[in-house]
Amino acid sequence: MKTTLKRLLLNCLLTSCFITAYGQDFYAPQRASWAEKAKQSIPRLTVTEKKPVALVNIVKDETAFQQYKAVQTAPIHKLYDSSFKETKSVIVDFGEHITGSFSFSTDLLRAESDAPARFKLTFGEVPSELVTPFDPYQGGLSRAWLQDEVVTVMTMPATMTIPRRVSFRYVKIELIATPPGYDFCISGMKCDAVTSAVNTPEELSATTPQLFKDIDRVSLNTLKECMQTVYEDGPKRDQRLWLGDLYLEALANNYSFKQYDLTKRCLYLLASLSEHNGKLNATVFEAPEPKPQAKQHLYDYSFLFGVTLKDYLLETGDRETAEDLWPVVKKQLESAYKYLQDDGMMNYEQASREWWIFFDWKDGLHREVAFHGVTIFAFREAYELAQLLNKENEVSQLPELIKKMKKAVRKHYYNPKTGLFTGILNDQVSYASQIWMVLSEVPTQKEAQRALRALKTTENVCTPGAPYLFHYYIEALIKSGLKEEAKKEMAEYWGGMIHKGADTFWEVYDPRNEYLSPYNFYPVNSYCHAWSCTPTYFIRKYPEIFQK
Amino acid sequence: MKTTLKRLLLNCLLTSCFITAYGQDFYAPQRASWAEKAKQSIPRLTVTEKKPVALVNIVKDETAFQQYKAVQTAPIHKLYDSSFKETKSVIVDFGEHITGSFSFSTDLLRAESDAPARFKLTFGEVPSELVTPFDPYQGGLSRAWLQDEVVTVMTMPATMTIPRRVSFRYVKIELIATPPGYDFCISGMKCDAVTSAVNTPEELSATTPQLFKDIDRVSLNTLKECMQTVYEDGPKRDQRLWLGDLYLEALANNYSFKQYDLTKRCLYLLASLSEHNGKLNATVFEAPEPKPQAKQHLYDYSFLFGVTLKDYLLETGDRETAEDLWPVVKKQLESAYKYLQDDGMMNYEQASREWWIFFDWKDGLHREVAFHGVTIFAFREAYELAQLLNKENEVSQLPELIKKMKKAVRKHYYNPKTGLFTGILNDQVSYASQIWMVLSEVPTQKEAQRALRALKTTENVCTPGAPYLFHYYIEALIKSGLKEEAKKEMAEYWGGMIHKGADTFWEVYDPRNEYLSPYNFYPVNSYCHAWSCTPTYFIRKYPEIFQK
Repeated sequence: MKTTLKRLLLNCLLTSCFITAYGQDFYAPQRASWAEKAKQSIPRLTVTEKKPVALVNIVKDETAFQQYKAVQTAPIHKLYDSSFKETKSVIVDFGEHITGSFSFSTDLLRAESDAPARFKLTFGEVPSELVTPFDPYQGGLSRAWLQDEVVTVMTMPATMTIPRRVSFRYVKIELIATPPGYDFCISGMKCDAVTSAVNTPEELSATTPQLFKDIDRVSLNTLKECMQTVYEDGPKRDQRLWLGDLYLEALANNYSFKQYDLTKRCLYLLASLSEHNGKLNATVFEAPEPKPQAKQHLYDYSFLFGVTLKDYLLETGDRETAEDLWPVVKKQLESAYKYLQDDGMMNYEQASREWWIFFDWKDGLHREVAFHGVTIFAFREAYELAQLLNKENEVSQLPELIKKMKKAVRKHYYNPKTGLFTGILNDQVSYASQIWMVLSEVPTQKEAQRALRALKTTENVCTPGAPYLFHYYIEALIKSGLKEEAKKEMAEYWGGMIHKGADTFWEVYDPRNEYLSPYNFYPVNSYCHAWSCTPTYFIRKYPEIFQK
Repeated sequence: MKTTLKRLLLNCLLTSCFITAYGQDFYAPQRASWAEKAKQSIPRLTVTEKKPVALVNIVKDETAFQQYKAVQTAPIHKLYDSSFKETKSVIVDFGEHITGSFSFSTDLLRAESDAPARFKLTFGEVPSELVTPFDPYQGGLSRAWLQDEVVTVMTMPATMTIPRRVSFRYVKIELIATPPGYDFCISGMKCDAVTSAVNTPEELSATTPQLFKDIDRVSLNTLKECMQTVYEDGPKRDQRLWLGDLYLEALANNYSFKQYDLTKRCLYLLASLSEHNGKLNATVFEAPEPKPQAKQHLYDYSFLFGVTLKDYLLETGDRETAEDLWPVVKKQLESAYKYLQDDGMMNYEQASREWWIFFDWKDGLHREVAFHGVTIFAFREAYELAQLLNKENEVSQLPELIKKMKKAVRKHYYNPKTGLFTGILNDQVSYASQIWMVLSEVPTQKEAQRALRALKTTENVCTPGAPYLFHYYIEALIKSGLKEEAKKEMAEYWGGMIHKGADTFWEVYDPRNEYLSPYNFYPVNSYCHAWSCTPTYFIRKYPEIFQK
């Protein structure tokens, strides 16, 4: 059967797109039940009492990450045994990244408390946060994300709990108001650490190189810290479910903790909080009650819902959930249909005015090529899910569409001379463009290898800004058969964070600029960020590459 | 019967002083029962929800108290109706002095909360506290008494409660960290005000001049705010029971709220927390559990226990309590016996090394004369209590002692030329000296009048520093028959605070120096202080002076 693209699209639009009148809720029949299923899958948080292990100084060291490192100075009992009125300021090391409820106790050493004391507590995921002045604050996000809190202690002995959940390895305690009449000590502290990750991932093969063991361990820590009542993006900041992070966390979870109910909950939560017009919101809050963050629609993220659902189905065989949520997957495809042109290309200019097209935190990245790539990728993934559910007839236009688009994209973006994909509107050579062409299977495997390798020898290449894109880079390398390169790149990138002392992997990491921040102030970066956790997925999915 | 002073003292010491071995608890048989009785008299706090009445600016005005006054700018709904992201800073007026638990709510005006916000709240009893920078702090007491708190609000809508109890009329709310992605308002606030004062004092006579009505009203407010689970000295600072304040609060309570159980509780609490050697501590804490503040022994305060108990007995007829606590009263007298010399004078130099002898917050005050005065006063009051309890035989030496001391003191301290009492060690003319001579009944009424009047015409007189001594001044004037002077002085002193806008009476008030502070920083002064509340006692006890 020969059909034109227009007929294909008409077919599709007739079956789903405009059958609801304006303003009506597209998912009206299902929404309440989705919300209920999201609620019923809320995982129990396990609480583990964590105690500090040592006192440290944060010292300047030009070879250390962001030029600061923590140097152990004394065992923790030194703090408890001495007058805090004399000590005045201390930095305590919990020895690992933790997320939870922090409390500390004070007790009297001499006489009775006759006046309140006041403390400033600063929690840091990395050493530089403890010594970098937060004010005057020039960051682009709320200053209140920074984890410094002031506590007034009216009488002693007392145990004070910081009301907000904190995420940290180090805590600085400063005495900022001194009671004159007596002396006291800090007599204890703890953090009731919370996570919903309870399962123990399998041991790696004994042949795994130490570096990959370390990368795996830190990946798992990162994921565990982000696994709360949803997959959070970062436990320090923003503490919420994002579609893009969900996909990568679910991937990593599939190969480690295997707690599929959390994936299910997040899919249902996002579905239940979608717009009435059927579009998914890229990020949602749980508190005070579940609701979406307004006006957050990310073009590329919206398709990851379907990919996550497909993986979930393959892992669990839970066909009921997959069928229940399939309408959401199908509905997102319309966001792409809208921009399709007769020639198989898409109207990127219009889309970029109407969407936040993300791919990476990277100033100056041109997204035209990746935009086409992710669309083809989304179509293919959606069609595969339809096949698993025997619903190919509902998206029967997709194979033809994919074919047509791949041909068009190849024609317009591929430069056979350089072997690289570049856009029409801008000839920037970027990792993002090559990666998403490879993942969309536009190039042959040989061309894919050539394009990815060419990135290393081309000048002025736009490199990845954040681990999120780096994940897709590793994926693209493996897909192209560049296994050794994948191993080498992971060793360099995530291994680079390991060498710099990472306890959890970071939101932003550019080896050439440790102060890079999308928010204009690096202490407000998240240093335990979900989208950084995927090495464990690669290491465990491809033991032949990483475990020997 | 003729006895020497030495024999008198020997008699006394044999009957009580050294019958317990060193280290034993003098009150061992009674202590637990006293503690239990203190506990059983803990009053219920009534909670009243208070709402703010207006928005104000604090403006400079050289005629206002401490040069600042609050000027109403808008009704409170203006705050609730507008974006606080734009307003950023506001001062709210609750219209009255309140003590309790403060909370405020925030709600979204636009979009959803995507980041935490942070607020600084500053609570003030008087306008200057809202505009005087607290830092760098140079005060002599803990900086943490100052009522500024930082609150992080992680999600909205939210209601945040300040953990510490606060005491204030005005609250400044400043937005110190702004969430960039949305807009919000302060949607409400309240204070759950607490007090144990529930009774309604009698109306004053209709003939009472307005100024004394005002003084009475503010006295009652002051007392009510200090009536918590004990008679506190000040609800902002120090929030605890002091013996000296107890006496004056109990006096005022006897003529107003008549809640005698609170007086009983405080007497039992102090008795139960006395030293093993029998000495009372001048101040005790209730939290985390009842205990004395160490090393706080005030010579003059310690005798006020007996005076308060005597008044309590006269008011209530509760002979059981008075008999139960009589041993404490008798025991305190030993603190005076120790310094008595054969000639009827006392060794002030030794006593002043061994005690905190208070009388007033006043630098440079010489306390030798007042020290003798309060001792004679204590002996007389104790003897009167003994008579009420038919226990004169236990302190049968007192009448003779008083007589002998009065004669000696008159001889050494009275200057017939000037009509004033001055010390041997220092010839300072002070209010304190004259007052305590009058209260000890050393001078005749005519001499007393002369001495008190002479204070007004003598140069370099040491004037009262705080309302505490001013109370005894009014008492001395009335005792001397100087009723008009008492009225005039109260009108000038407490009326002065009224004219300066006092909602409650202050800890420290010197009309010539509004910035006077015993703690080197006037914002840490208490502006609702128990020892300032006694005008209501005078006004109600002496209607013929103040109510016409």
